[in-house]
Amino acid sequence: MFQSYEESLEILKKHTTEWNRVEKVVLTEALGRILATDIVAKENYPSHETSAMDGYACRFCDFDGVENAELKLLGDVPAGALKNVKLGKNECIKTFTGSLMCEDSDTLVPIENVLVKDGVVKITNPVKRGFAVRKVGESYKKDEVLITKGTKLSYSEIALLAELGEYHISVFIKPKIAVLSTGSEIKDLGEALEHEAQIRSSNHVAIASMAKLMGCEARILPIVKDEPNLVKEAIINGLQGCDILITTGGVSVGDYDFVKGALNQNCEVIINGAAIKPGRHIKVAKFNDKFIFALPGFPYSAMVMCVLYVRVLLDSFFGSKSHEINAVLSEDYKKKSPFLEFVACNIEVNQNGVVTANLKGKKDGSSAIVNNLNSEAALLIVPLELDGYKKGDVVKILKMV
Amino acid sequence: MFQSYEESLEILKKHTTEWNRVEKVVLTEALGRILATDIVAKENYPSHETSAMDGYACRFCDFDGVENAELKLLGDVPAGALKNVKLGKNECIKTFTGSLMCEDSDTLVPIENVLVKDGVVKITNPVKRGFAVRKVGESYKKDEVLITKGTKLSYSEIALLAELGEYHISVFIKPKIAVLSTGSEIKDLGEALEHEAQIRSSNHVAIASMAKLMGCEARILPIVKDEPNLVKEAIINGLQGCDILITTGGVSVGDYDFVKGALNQNCEVIINGAAIKPGRHIKVAKFNDKFIFALPGFPYSAMVMCVLYVRVLLDSFFGSKSHEINAVLSEDYKKKSPFLEFVACNIEVNQNGVVTANLKGKKDGSSAIVNNLNSEAALLIVPLELDGYKKGDVVKILKMV
Repeated sequence: MFQSYEESLEILKKHTTEWNRVEKVVLTEALGRILATDIVAKENYPSHETSAMDGYACRFCDFDGVENAELKLLGDVPAGALKNVKLGKNECIKTFTGSLMCEDSDTLVPIENVLVKDGVVKITNPVKRGFAVRKVGESYKKDEVLITKGTKLSYSEIALLAELGEYHISVFIKPKIAVLSTGSEIKDLGEALEHEAQIRSSNHVAIASMAKLMGCEARILPIVKDEPNLVKEAIINGLQGCDILITTGGVSVGDYDFVKGALNQNCEVIINGAAIKPGRHIKVAKFNDKFIFALPGFPYSAMVMCVLYVRVLLDSFFGSKSHEINAVLSEDYKKKSPFLEFVACNIEVNQNGVVTANLKGKKDGSSAIVNNLNSEAALLIVPLELDGYKKGDVVKILKMV
Repeated sequence: MFQSYEESLEILKKHTTEWNRVEKVVLTEALGRILATDIVAKENYPSHETSAMDGYACRFCDFDGVENAELKLLGDVPAGALKNVKLGKNECIKTFTGSLMCEDSDTLVPIENVLVKDGVVKITNPVKRGFAVRKVGESYKKDEVLITKGTKLSYSEIALLAELGEYHISVFIKPKIAVLSTGSEIKDLGEALEHEAQIRSSNHVAIASMAKLMGCEARILPIVKDEPNLVKEAIINGLQGCDILITTGGVSVGDYDFVKGALNQNCEVIINGAAIKPGRHIKVAKFNDKFIFALPGFPYSAMVMCVLYVRVLLDSFFGSKSHEINAVLSEDYKKKSPFLEFVACNIEVNQNGVVTANLKGKKDGSSAIVNNLNSEAALLIVPLELDGYKKGDVVKILKMV
């Protein structure tokens, strides 16, 4: 009898230690990296009042909403200029987007709202008090937590770090993942097939791509044939250069499934199968502080197992986040197994803003069908205790990478 | 009076020529690249019937659903082996996941469903005809279009290309984007601020990051001060090394906005403002076959303009796709301008599978607020003709990069 998926995850989490490996990268190399510290504002931003438009900085009390008030023009303050001007009664100064508001000014009248002649600014279209003035702390206040540890840095976080003057950023070192595909029937990239019993390996590039998308470094090891000593050696050697070894194939009940035996003999197997479809023969082992994920050989299974187990480990390293959303199922689904099922599906948002899940174009058949995960497919989760779902049911969807 | 956003896009599209620059990359470097050709199946896959499990290949007619039928075991077919076996009456052969089904076999009885003794296989738990046999073409049929031109290659498309034996892939050459930030008030990464009228540049790294996320190469040019000759020279020089030049700042109505003038004098300005908030001073120009996008200097505006204009151009290069979804608004929104507005918002999916949009944590104020786009923010689209929205309204949301 297989243990449940949830039970197997508990075991995985129990064996997980903290990933406290941090390195510094320059900001221009930080896109997509995972932040290893909270980022806190050291001061209010902006630290001084600045102008949000091109116009005339003035004292609201000098026109107080009345049309055609006239103010004496004292000159201008280009952006970046530091001028010690203090406005007196009925005075104004030309001020540009991003410029400091001068002392005692409280309002900016835009260029489009005035007539200027002979050094006099006539306000033809008054504005309200404080118009177009960026207040101190408008963007953020001192001590505000702006980006939290574990955030994957995208374009706007990069922009914010630049604005804050953070140039050398603490990010998590990428875990090194090595991918070892096994199978006497599989040929490598660029190799010719010799006869119809052979197929081309896809797992190694698939899993390496997923590892990269999940924030890891990935290395593809040479494919190894189904021979016990070769498999054992490849696993032992492969472990040297990585933090996480992912194997594919060789974990089922067949006479040529030698990954299983190699792990039993040389590592501590912590997960030995789970009541899930696909992937019930999944094995997870530890070798000192390293993890080995032994995934099935069928590529759909391997790719799904990679999110069901490897991603869970990475999330516990970097800070957990949910990959599940709810959706409304567009068709009936009848379960294929007595297990917890993960079924490739398409996710769309309809005209009413409802997330719908459908199986259009997803081919029925074995777990060998790679193309079922194309086009940003996600996974419909069908619990152990259900026979399936009816059209219109609210279902849980697990996002792939 | 500004033209509408839609009108400005029509002009942009009219000036767009085909992006027919294609290069070959090896499969292991193709993740995230954009496919430049359709990928079509050259043959059925699998091309021969193969086993989906470990078990015994046999003729269904020899047991026909009856328990305890006994079959003579002829040996085995490991995965990858080519054996010329033809089953006779009441014969079977051990066959492993991924192995060829032998001639005249039509059904696979899994290992778990039999007892084996003295070369005889007793079927204790019969299966239906065709069980666990991967049919010819189960994954795809000859001539099926599997991946279309314009697809961004993710992990599963990479896997499929490997399976197909496609090793050297035709992808679009990445457009080269150069980013030129202008402004006398902005200091570069790592430079100290000298006084409170200066701020740190964030636009250049933000726009370069967005360019990378949109599938381009990005280069950051030196920041240029608000001096007409410097700005003009920087634009002319910057154009040399790129396909698309993106400037920030210098396009408004102020006396120090010199990007505007430089474009008017040296390029063909095709878009001169649009009735949108933020970014109404957007300018788009052409210089021979190159594009210049002159974005506003405030970073929120610049980043939003980058998706509203630059992404539209890239979509027309690579094949258009929609970035809009519908959502239900969680709160009232009152418009701030007479224009088409794009407002930073959070997108969540609720328990019923409904996409909701809210403005929680989005700070009110000017378009200078970088952090409003953090945490995977999207944009609430508020049309020109509306004053705003009420809580519960179905609204259009534009996804950022």
